[in-house]
Amino acid sequence: MAEFDHINWIKAKNTAHSRLLVPPGDDTALVLTSSATLMAADMLLEGVHFDLGTTPAPLVGRKALAVNLSDIAAMAGNAVAFTVSLALPQGRGPNYADTVARELFLGMDELARQFNVALAGGDTNAWNGPLVIDVAIIGDAPRRGPVRRQGAQAGDWIFVTGSLGGSLTGHHLTFQPRLREAAILHERYGLSAMIDISDGLSQDLGHILAASRCGARLDKKAIPISAAAALIGDGQSPLQHAMHDGEDFELCFTVNPSIGAKLLRDQPLADLNSNATLTKIGEITESADYMWTDGSPVTRRGYEHSF
Amino acid sequence: MAEFDHINWIKAKNTAHSRLLVPPGDDTALVLTSSATLMAADMLLEGVHFDLGTTPAPLVGRKALAVNLSDIAAMAGNAVAFTVSLALPQGRGPNYADTVARELFLGMDELARQFNVALAGGDTNAWNGPLVIDVAIIGDAPRRGPVRRQGAQAGDWIFVTGSLGGSLTGHHLTFQPRLREAAILHERYGLSAMIDISDGLSQDLGHILAASRCGARLDKKAIPISAAAALIGDGQSPLQHAMHDGEDFELCFTVNPSIGAKLLRDQPLADLNSNATLTKIGEITESADYMWTDGSPVTRRGYEHSF
Repeated sequence: MAEFDHINWIKAKNTAHSRLLVPPGDDTALVLTSSATLMAADMLLEGVHFDLGTTPAPLVGRKALAVNLSDIAAMAGNAVAFTVSLALPQGRGPNYADTVARELFLGMDELARQFNVALAGGDTNAWNGPLVIDVAIIGDAPRRGPVRRQGAQAGDWIFVTGSLGGSLTGHHLTFQPRLREAAILHERYGLSAMIDISDGLSQDLGHILAASRCGARLDKKAIPISAAAALIGDGQSPLQHAMHDGEDFELCFTVNPSIGAKLLRDQPLADLNSNATLTKIGEITESADYMWTDGSPVTRRGYEHSF
Repeated sequence: MAEFDHINWIKAKNTAHSRLLVPPGDDTALVLTSSATLMAADMLLEGVHFDLGTTPAPLVGRKALAVNLSDIAAMAGNAVAFTVSLALPQGRGPNYADTVARELFLGMDELARQFNVALAGGDTNAWNGPLVIDVAIIGDAPRRGPVRRQGAQAGDWIFVTGSLGGSLTGHHLTFQPRLREAAILHERYGLSAMIDISDGLSQDLGHILAASRCGARLDKKAIPISAAAALIGDGQSPLQHAMHDGEDFELCFTVNPSIGAKLLRDQPLADLNSNATLTKIGEITESADYMWTDGSPVTRRGYEHSF
């Protein structure tokens, strides 16, 4: 594989970024950072997280970056720069690996421009294995400090953005990482805890409850169910899809009740036209019980994939 | 695979680090950074870069981190934090993936402690494919600014640390990343260009020459040949091994002649007892020719793997 040409192609595509002081081409990049830097990584594997037979490579590249942007959003941070490591499949025909690589980068590049995040380098390899794409990302912590999972207090209201469920029918490839939404919410209002919904609401809110050592009471009628979840019709209810499907990449956060009431009045995300409706779905409780308002327990189901 | 247990095991092992303000367990870590941050990533693939049948997993983990530390060293930076993304092979017997993961982390952990670099998170997956390990790293740029490939000037002296060649007989798994050496050299003396020798001296010095738009004249008798290179006896000469083998992870750098003379007098790395002898191997020339002092051309050979 002509990796050198590929690298030069990336360099040529990679336009200047005000925070990228040394661009790819040295042993490391140099990035202008604030004193508190968020850092995360997410890996996508062919055959596990995507299928190149059914998913166009640009959308795979887009998603590899988008899930990392969503991690920065979950802390209410500002995404700054990312690296991309690839294992490209060879032996699938002439130029296959090269073409896939270009398409991956095109999909990433479009999203990177949209969120003004800089490609800072990475590592490109070819092998007789499936496609692997790992993105690592850094970002600025918000001025108020990052929103963690552990800050929820008894009495806090629980919100989600957007609508949930059925994401794997398509939304997981095209979702908008909630960076602007999280930044507005935290900067203007101050959030007590937050997570992005990647494993499913039941599981991810469960992470907040565990980290914050508290419980929750959720209102079944309040859970915002996506059109996709309502249409699946596979025996699971739309509510079950909304609670457990995962890959929504919406925000789930908590705020104290007075801020919660103000949020509902202000609707500060309405101007973004990003479908990030704010829905109060329940309240944090002192007791560790995770239940519905009717007293029945919330089932935790979904998957775990990050540390 | 019991990924949750695995994650908790990592969290338990991951002792506090003064720069890690939010440890793994949230959507991102939070790292205390300087205003100029170096960033890089390197991926290792089973069957391409290592063979688990012949290489103990702790050494694979160690190497995955070590090559990234070497990238920070090449810029004369200070390594701060890293993420680890894994694709673990499943279906190779009970507990295989879990055992490999633990061993990888043990190998990384030992090196991370030695260089005081913090594990900031990552992503752990299992699949029916070979082992993939991708490390991304951030570090502080040195106060004088990072040493790039592009700063060599005609007349500069060319140095390498240590001895070269035959690394794949073992050294590539146990090498000491030259972080302290690079920091001392750049802080005390000021280097004009630097690279770590990963692709082979002929290739990597070639990168400096291309980036700096100049040439070099090298002294065949001066190239420091490792004992391993001298012992291979496969038809290639020890010099050829030293020039082209790659994975030495020594430093190749340039300085102006007066500083070069001072370096030879001072031997500032002698106290480290790290076998990082300083050897002048040639000089930078105005013309783009890459040649030996006898006028014959230097063959560029090795491999490319990073951008």
